[in-house]
Amino acid sequence: MEAFNVKEHPHTRLNILTGDWILVSPHRTKRPWQGKVETLPPDNRPSYDPKCYLCPGNTRADGSVNPNYDHSFVFTNDYSALLTDTPDGALNVKGLLSAKSEKGICKVLSFSPDHSLTLPQLSVEGIEKVIEVWIDEFKNIAADPTIRYIQIFENKGEMMGCSNPHPHGQIWASSSVPLEIAKETNQQKKYFDEHGKSLLSDYLQLELEQQERIVLENEHFAALVPFWVVWPYETMIVSKRHFQNLLQFTSDEKHAYAQILKKLTAKYDNLFEISFPYSAGIHQAPVNDGDHPEWHWHMHFYPPLLRSATVKKFMVGYEMLANPQRDVSAEWAAEKLRALSETHYKETRK
Amino acid sequence: MEAFNVKEHPHTRLNILTGDWILVSPHRTKRPWQGKVETLPPDNRPSYDPKCYLCPGNTRADGSVNPNYDHSFVFTNDYSALLTDTPDGALNVKGLLSAKSEKGICKVLSFSPDHSLTLPQLSVEGIEKVIEVWIDEFKNIAADPTIRYIQIFENKGEMMGCSNPHPHGQIWASSSVPLEIAKETNQQKKYFDEHGKSLLSDYLQLELEQQERIVLENEHFAALVPFWVVWPYETMIVSKRHFQNLLQFTSDEKHAYAQILKKLTAKYDNLFEISFPYSAGIHQAPVNDGDHPEWHWHMHFYPPLLRSATVKKFMVGYEMLANPQRDVSAEWAAEKLRALSETHYKETRK
Ligand SMILES: O=P(O)(O)O[C@H]1O[C@H](CO)[C@@H](O)[C@H](O)[C@H]1O
Ligand SMILES: O=P(O)(O)O[C@H]1O[C@H](CO)[C@@H](O)[C@H](O)[C@H]1O
Repeated sequence: MEAFNVKEHPHTRLNILTGDWILVSPHRTKRPWQGKVETLPPDNRPSYDPKCYLCPGNTRADGSVNPNYDHSFVFTNDYSALLTDTPDGALNVKGLLSAKSEKGICKVLSFSPDHSLTLPQLSVEGIEKVIEVWIDEFKNIAADPTIRYIQIFENKGEMMGCSNPHPHGQIWASSSVPLEIAKETNQQKKYFDEHGKSLLSDYLQLELEQQERIVLENEHFAALVPFWVVWPYETMIVSKRHFQNLLQFTSDEKHAYAQILKKLTAKYDNLFEISFPYSAGIHQAPVNDGDHPEWHWHMHFYPPLLRSATVKKFMVGYEMLANPQRDVSAEWAAEKLRALSETHYKETRK
Repeated sequence: MEAFNVKEHPHTRLNILTGDWILVSPHRTKRPWQGKVETLPPDNRPSYDPKCYLCPGNTRADGSVNPNYDHSFVFTNDYSALLTDTPDGALNVKGLLSAKSEKGICKVLSFSPDHSLTLPQLSVEGIEKVIEVWIDEFKNIAADPTIRYIQIFENKGEMMGCSNPHPHGQIWASSSVPLEIAKETNQQKKYFDEHGKSLLSDYLQLELEQQERIVLENEHFAALVPFWVVWPYETMIVSKRHFQNLLQFTSDEKHAYAQILKKLTAKYDNLFEISFPYSAGIHQAPVNDGDHPEWHWHMHFYPPLLRSATVKKFMVGYEMLANPQRDVSAEWAAEKLRALSETHYKETRK
């Protein structure tokens, strides 16, 4: 019998950050597609849209007027999922109906005054300004002792539920530690307690030795397709230095992070020559929750597209009810991404 | 200060089947929507489509010809994610890269020879025939000692990644126990060991007393919106009797199950007067895996629509990176579903 080969045979892979196993079917790319084809929104937005609630000088839902900002602009979401003034309380009926009050804050962060420019189209300096706002917000929000976790993220593109095309991200902070963060804390703590080093330091070292899943690298960060990815072109940016959160970035690291963010998102746009949809977000240690020496800062990118600009991977029936599943190998996806230019296709064409 | 109220204030609820907590923001329904609007496929299919690979007498991708079947028709998926002849093997590099070979089988089950009829449009007898095929397939697949779990499910509608509009379901069986089933086994076992009764018996009794989240009920089953749902109109069908799998259905139960399936899916279609998209699937005990007295058979429905036939709930950024979140309460959704007719709108109009 043929030898087992992860590039050919169906198998499961362990996500070392969550402890979950992912089903991989590397042979399944060839199946025909008669299902849903996405329509993409037009990619020729003006620099200013008078009806956009994120453009400078415009009026928002609550009647307030946006400042004429130069770089980025943050405000509390007019329709926050989490609120600061929720009364404390809980419900428990025989352990069968359990609920707990949750406090928090939801903010919106416009990446630039220009309605048309997405992250890969900003200059490295423009991206550094965004990173600086993330750092400031993290610091301010963490000063509230009721907050335990601060999730910084971006939903890019209509396909990812983004409700306004003006490039922007969000920050949701909560009074309890969210599920994914609890899982990653648990796995990282187990490893740290056993090895005295962070899980991602050792993992990154191995990946840098093997090179097979590395997409980009600079002095302070690497972008790679993790061995256990579930989304077709999922990647992760990992810091080479082991630290817990954004507040520990040196100014060199800030600059290197902006650089790798620009290059990675440009590669994504270059893949199908469209503004590539994804949800991306930073994972870092909980706050106001004691020491977390096990935590190693990183950022995930979860993009839905699979075959083309209009056919995505559906995480549906089997994936919802049983187990996450993917149709291509991580190695195959890394090779594709590595081969793409680091310069945005719109810049190349100028 | 106001008292904490689960119908008004942001809170988390415990999913007793998985052990995970869900973020609920019942106040968030009012936010405006400028995001993606779905296009629905036309809902006037012919009874027979010469190009459909599920219609009787047509030729499939592998060249085989479908029989002229009367009720339902099962075959092995031409593009299976799991295969029976995968070589055994594993990979383990320092616990950081871990993979294991996985065997299994993927089948497709056409619900009826008629290309145009979805589950709620079949007669109760027609649905009983589908249930009988599920039972037969479960029995046959479980006879293979390498199989540990058999997932029966349906992806309904393009929005749910369904790749062919001819009404059909799938069965994926695997040599390991999938993630969601492992979580539900764990939670049910803990409860059973402590109380000597199944978790869902006690839960269902409580729900039947409270009535607030019950949508439908007959002699043998109830359909309800679980306290911890995450999808806007998510429901679960639970058997009143505590048993482990489909093979234990009495003939009365088979009939009652067909009845509740028809009524629940008709209510779904009636909600927005469209063929309502969802992923649905049966959860039952693992096979060839010793006794599982803790397991209580049930079926989940995960429908994506939120506001209308064309605006769905996006489980994106925060939900992927941090924690599942919903914008309406379970009680609100149950009330909406309860109020709808049990007769399909197309039947009413005849
Ligand atoms: O086999 P199908 O119907 O083409 O595929 C569909 O269902 C599968 C199981 O939920 C998913 O993995 C696919 O992403 C989805 O498109
Ligand atoms: O606040 P927005 O951008 O309108 O909403 C978007 O992001 C949120 C956080 O990921 C999701 O809960 C919503 O489903 C999505 O549409």
